[in-house]
Amino acid sequence: MAAARVEFAQHGFAGTTLRSIAARAGVDPALIHHYFGTKMGLFQAVLALGVDPTRQALPAMLDGPREEAGQRIVRTFLTMYEDPQFREPVLAVMRTAMTSREVAALAASFLQDTMLRGLVTLAVGPDPARQVALAMTHLMGTVLGRHVLGLAALQGEVDALVDELAPVVQRYLDGAHRDVTGPVGS
Amino acid sequence: MAAARVEFAQHGFAGTTLRSIAARAGVDPALIHHYFGTKMGLFQAVLALGVDPTRQALPAMLDGPREEAGQRIVRTFLTMYEDPQFREPVLAVMRTAMTSREVAALAASFLQDTMLRGLVTLAVGPDPARQVALAMTHLMGTVLGRHVLGLAALQGEVDALVDELAPVVQRYLDGAHRDVTGPVGS
Repeated sequence: MAAARVEFAQHGFAGTTLRSIAARAGVDPALIHHYFGTKMGLFQAVLALGVDPTRQALPAMLDGPREEAGQRIVRTFLTMYEDPQFREPVLAVMRTAMTSREVAALAASFLQDTMLRGLVTLAVGPDPARQVALAMTHLMGTVLGRHVLGLAALQGEVDALVDELAPVVQRYLDGAHRDVTGPVGS
Repeated sequence: MAAARVEFAQHGFAGTTLRSIAARAGVDPALIHHYFGTKMGLFQAVLALGVDPTRQALPAMLDGPREEAGQRIVRTFLTMYEDPQFREPVLAVMRTAMTSREVAALAASFLQDTMLRGLVTLAVGPDPARQVALAMTHLMGTVLGRHVLGLAALQGEVDALVDELAPVVQRYLDGAHRDVTGPVGS
């Protein structure tokens, strides 16, 4: 576990192999495989995450027309966070990330190498990686406001939030977020 | 301090008076005034916040045409968080809010009674309080991604982020965030 933490922190999730962790720990890779299964299993153990936050979410977000990706991403993301069994361990990692640069780097590399990289094909425009990051951190902020701060203004049905956020996320994916529509009323 | 914590947690920032805290603590309100100055001073002490995160920000966000509020809000908010002297204590409160329901309630009531309520006049549309909450939690997510997770895709000049986020925040304030513009490319 200590060896894994160092390797993941130094090389990120994608840049780390079970082999390099095994080498650092002075054990056979098969031993790691035996106890933790996959690299993801070991990573979850290192972050004390009881769930793989992307295994089901990513296909649900990717599978369908690109023009409706905003809708799928927002619904899938917000629905996951309605479940305390999912939400609490993820928020625990976020909390630790706020204290520890090492955990922050791990969480960032995980987010980068799974969710953000996985969704980047849905974005068109000048900087797809940035567009996806803007969209997903927007949704993280929504979760923070709804579930951590419990802001009254962000309670109510998930469906309502999906209706409000999906067009915004879609606009980020389309690279159309800078387009200024005329102000409504004033 | 203990009395203040209980009163703020039970009645929120706006619903708490120095008088009620003094009554709970069994002291004269003048004594609190002597040591902590205003209610805000006491609140900052309770949250161990070294700064008042809204005193300068709110006027800077409010002062100007409503049609440019998105620009002012995003620039002011992101610029504040560039300064570690401001950022670190606020993130410390956020971190604690993730562990303690009491601190979360305090932070939420503070955010509600200062920033969110202060900006609500800038929003037009079906639910101004919600529109402001969506906009501000979006920016909190950006700060989380940029400063806590240190996502590579969200680094670079603040000016660039302002250009990208201001139209989105403006659209929330205008109640135009649900409007779907045609997808660009595909």
